[in-house]
Amino acid sequence: MPDDHKSKKQPGEFELIARLCAGLPQSSRTILGPGDDCAVLAPSRRPQLLTIDSMVESVHFNLEWLSAQQLGARALTVNLSDIAAMGGTPHTCVVNLGIRAGLDAAFFDRLYRGLRQAAQAAAVDIVGGNITRSGQLTLTVALLGDVTGQALRRDTARIGDEIFVTGTLGDSALGWRILAGEIKAEGTARKYLVGRFIAPAARLLQGQELARMRPAPAAIDISDGLLGDLGHILERSRVGAEVDLAALPRSRHYVTVAGDRLEMALSGGEDYELLFCLRPGHSEEALSRRLGVPVRRIGLIVERRRGLKLRGPDGRLLAAAAMRGWDQLANGAAQLRK
Amino acid sequence: MPDDHKSKKQPGEFELIARLCAGLPQSSRTILGPGDDCAVLAPSRRPQLLTIDSMVESVHFNLEWLSAQQLGARALTVNLSDIAAMGGTPHTCVVNLGIRAGLDAAFFDRLYRGLRQAAQAAAVDIVGGNITRSGQLTLTVALLGDVTGQALRRDTARIGDEIFVTGTLGDSALGWRILAGEIKAEGTARKYLVGRFIAPAARLLQGQELARMRPAPAAIDISDGLLGDLGHILERSRVGAEVDLAALPRSRHYVTVAGDRLEMALSGGEDYELLFCLRPGHSEEALSRRLGVPVRRIGLIVERRRGLKLRGPDGRLLAAAAMRGWDQLANGAAQLRK
Repeated sequence: MPDDHKSKKQPGEFELIARLCAGLPQSSRTILGPGDDCAVLAPSRRPQLLTIDSMVESVHFNLEWLSAQQLGARALTVNLSDIAAMGGTPHTCVVNLGIRAGLDAAFFDRLYRGLRQAAQAAAVDIVGGNITRSGQLTLTVALLGDVTGQALRRDTARIGDEIFVTGTLGDSALGWRILAGEIKAEGTARKYLVGRFIAPAARLLQGQELARMRPAPAAIDISDGLLGDLGHILERSRVGAEVDLAALPRSRHYVTVAGDRLEMALSGGEDYELLFCLRPGHSEEALSRRLGVPVRRIGLIVERRRGLKLRGPDGRLLAAAAMRGWDQLANGAAQLRK
Repeated sequence: MPDDHKSKKQPGEFELIARLCAGLPQSSRTILGPGDDCAVLAPSRRPQLLTIDSMVESVHFNLEWLSAQQLGARALTVNLSDIAAMGGTPHTCVVNLGIRAGLDAAFFDRLYRGLRQAAQAAAVDIVGGNITRSGQLTLTVALLGDVTGQALRRDTARIGDEIFVTGTLGDSALGWRILAGEIKAEGTARKYLVGRFIAPAARLLQGQELARMRPAPAAIDISDGLLGDLGHILERSRVGAEVDLAALPRSRHYVTVAGDRLEMALSGGEDYELLFCLRPGHSEEALSRRLGVPVRRIGLIVERRRGLKLRGPDGRLLAAAAMRGWDQLANGAAQLRK
């Protein structure tokens, strides 16, 4: 029978877990944190939200693009955004780390520092995790939250609703293409766009505020691109939509780099802004004040049979079928690797 | 700006998610299942258990070794075992799938069939998930459960406690070495040992029964090997232990293949049996009847300064320091790949 030969070059699983979990702060909600077979959480009186998301090296990021600390924070943020899209408050997460050769303990210390800071900022307890060997560095976070009142869903958009988005679209997609060397940009524009990819913000407060409105708006976070994510709303709500191309909110840095081209704003992905649908009567100004971020009305929910249409500057409607959302499964790896 | 070139050879992320989630049965606990940004779960009156675990191709399994269906079931089972080790009842999971090129939609249908069957058998709702491209097929499951009364923990072993294990040890480790071609075995022995690796059982009922005992026993599931996992109990409870080598429960198929050698029973890993610590006065017979599986007393909790010792057939005590548990992070990939 073969012996188990230990590698001395990398920290072992248990050593690494002990380093990463040492002194993690826990709220009173956590009865038992890291170090056992499971974490134990206090019962909850409110409905619970549960989501899982993953970031894979060479698919979602390259280590030359962002620091270990930024990577750790981002892995939590993409999950926070899912909680935000339901109008919830995140509270507890577990982390699965797939680690490859060539990364030392100091790297994982920095990674976890970023993750812990992001968790602390969002009042999330990291209550456990798992570490495994893998060919690519992989961070998978499962996140729990709770929701007061009614969760924001994808299946509640109604004909006549107006469609709004927070912030600006396409910045992040431009940012990672700049990092990948596919697009050139310099100075402030580069810094801003790359920053939007590397350190997105989850719209938690905005989601929670939307969840206070009645009827509860249909909502989704824009992670796959506006058209793709709006498509999810249409499919689940069995409705159609018209989107006004002239209304798409783009940052001035987007315009500097991409000019009039709308592809990244329409289908770029990884914006982590919120898209939501409201009964008519809400002004952009009042909503922007209420949510504390710029809000733009970009279109209208229509009958299902009318599908998803884009209204051009000349007022004509174009079918959106040819401009699908960014499907990272089909594209991500190939793009990052080329 | 580059266009997003879509591959037509593999199903896209959304298509695959729709296939995998179609018609998933949900209990009344699930308010909103797959298809939104998060799942929504009903509030729980009992403490909640949360765990995450991952299976990575070429690290934990090879596709020549087991069917897609067996793989799907196993990914849930290793998590069920963590809930079992806390004495809990699993109820809800989310699944993150990292998929590589070369696997078609039919493969994922079979994978999910196995996962769904295992979930149904354990009364677990699959409420959502995420799919990403990856270099290796990777299945990560985050699992929630609840616990009636007191959870079984690693930090509650006391000096004088007797140490017990369910079932037999080392079968699974022999099984995967047989699959890897490192050990030869034929006939019934091969079938049994390989089966113990491919289709382990989580000791849920046994864990739940142990959680009814007072005081609640310290417990852990044996996933890293007896010595490694007992080591976790000792570290967390700040105690030592003596293990009687002659008492280690081995199957007759283990003995057929490995003879008197104890390495796999001591350090093999992936047994998914339970190890637990009880105040003296429980017989193996009564415990076996109560738990419905064979239970063996293998040792004693002693003072911390005495560390972890193994008692040989001659009654002499040996330090266990040289015989550590199977650390898959340090060994798994190298072993499977050689």
